[in-house]
Amino acid sequence: MSVDTESPVRLPHLDENGRAALFTEARTANAFTAEPVPDETLRAIWELAQWPPTAANTQPLRVTYVRSEQGKERLLPLMAEGNRPKVESAPAVALLAVDLDFHTHADRTFPIRPGFRESLDGQGREGREQMATFNATLQIGYFLLAARAHGLATGPMAGFDAEAVTAEFTPGGRYRTLLVVNLGHPAEDAWFDRLPRLETDEVLTFA
Amino acid sequence: MSVDTESPVRLPHLDENGRAALFTEARTANAFTAEPVPDETLRAIWELAQWPPTAANTQPLRVTYVRSEQGKERLLPLMAEGNRPKVESAPAVALLAVDLDFHTHADRTFPIRPGFRESLDGQGREGREQMATFNATLQIGYFLLAARAHGLATGPMAGFDAEAVTAEFTPGGRYRTLLVVNLGHPAEDAWFDRLPRLETDEVLTFA
Repeated sequence: MSVDTESPVRLPHLDENGRAALFTEARTANAFTAEPVPDETLRAIWELAQWPPTAANTQPLRVTYVRSEQGKERLLPLMAEGNRPKVESAPAVALLAVDLDFHTHADRTFPIRPGFRESLDGQGREGREQMATFNATLQIGYFLLAARAHGLATGPMAGFDAEAVTAEFTPGGRYRTLLVVNLGHPAEDAWFDRLPRLETDEVLTFA
Repeated sequence: MSVDTESPVRLPHLDENGRAALFTEARTANAFTAEPVPDETLRAIWELAQWPPTAANTQPLRVTYVRSEQGKERLLPLMAEGNRPKVESAPAVALLAVDLDFHTHADRTFPIRPGFRESLDGQGREGREQMATFNATLQIGYFLLAARAHGLATGPMAGFDAEAVTAEFTPGGRYRTLLVVNLGHPAEDAWFDRLPRLETDEVLTFA
């Protein structure tokens, strides 16, 4: 092999155990044991999830961890009825929201493009919404795998009153709740049967 | 510890090497060596990325891998000028698009909710767009980490003419391109300095 095609940097692969923990064996859990998830673990999930990329380092995801009785009582009536028993059984629930004013941090987070903050400021929340939501949603993908990396089962739920959850936990117009995720240790009957994935050739095209 | 708080299932953690490969040490690459990425690796990335969850198992992400000279020539003029040298150096480029007609697979992918496909069909592409884009974007998060799991550096790019890329590679109105991602082995000068992340307390709230 010539020097031209030899990579000067060899990146590591994820081993079989790691693939199983995050991808191939991990499953969405629908019931949890009473074993608590310490706040240090909830912080550590974020400290892992923060690293993968966002456009122009915008990092628009914000997380509210609900784990007190009072917090659960505020959240439960805003969830779809079918999701309430799952939320009740989860020792911690993450409310994942986008910060539409993410640009206020841009002088610090993206100093390499002067005028970036001012340009986003001029767009208003509506103008920033697509960029913010796209990048916050990427971060939700990272967050789910980071929670699994800490040995937790995740239970993402789209069935909730998003406007009501936002108004209750992050009011004022700056935030929009995108997803609610149960976190904890799976109960014995936590899993449904795995649903089928599309055939690879239904997803991939080569050009 | 009582039986009540003892979890019957202990999930694995991701070890330090795995965290480094996917999260803490991995970096966005801006230049690549000429070492090719075999089609089998490109398929294997998808076969890992397919597993984490989407709402109602919708799986709306579609991937076009561009790695031929002809494919690169069709793509290059549609990229922002600053991204062209990166695309030129990458041995493979993934065009990540959402399939707004994802529901056509629903009888097979989500058989547990009869009438789901019909209900989505009635909404039209515009009505399905938010659900489709949110879940495809989650899958892009999984995809980026799955590419890293295979020892590749990723270079996601938002700077391109999305309508033109869609029209060139996946025309007809069914697809929308969301992100273009370079894949390959990093050249020696592949990385910028790491940009700062927000403080954990700027992101997390506890309730």
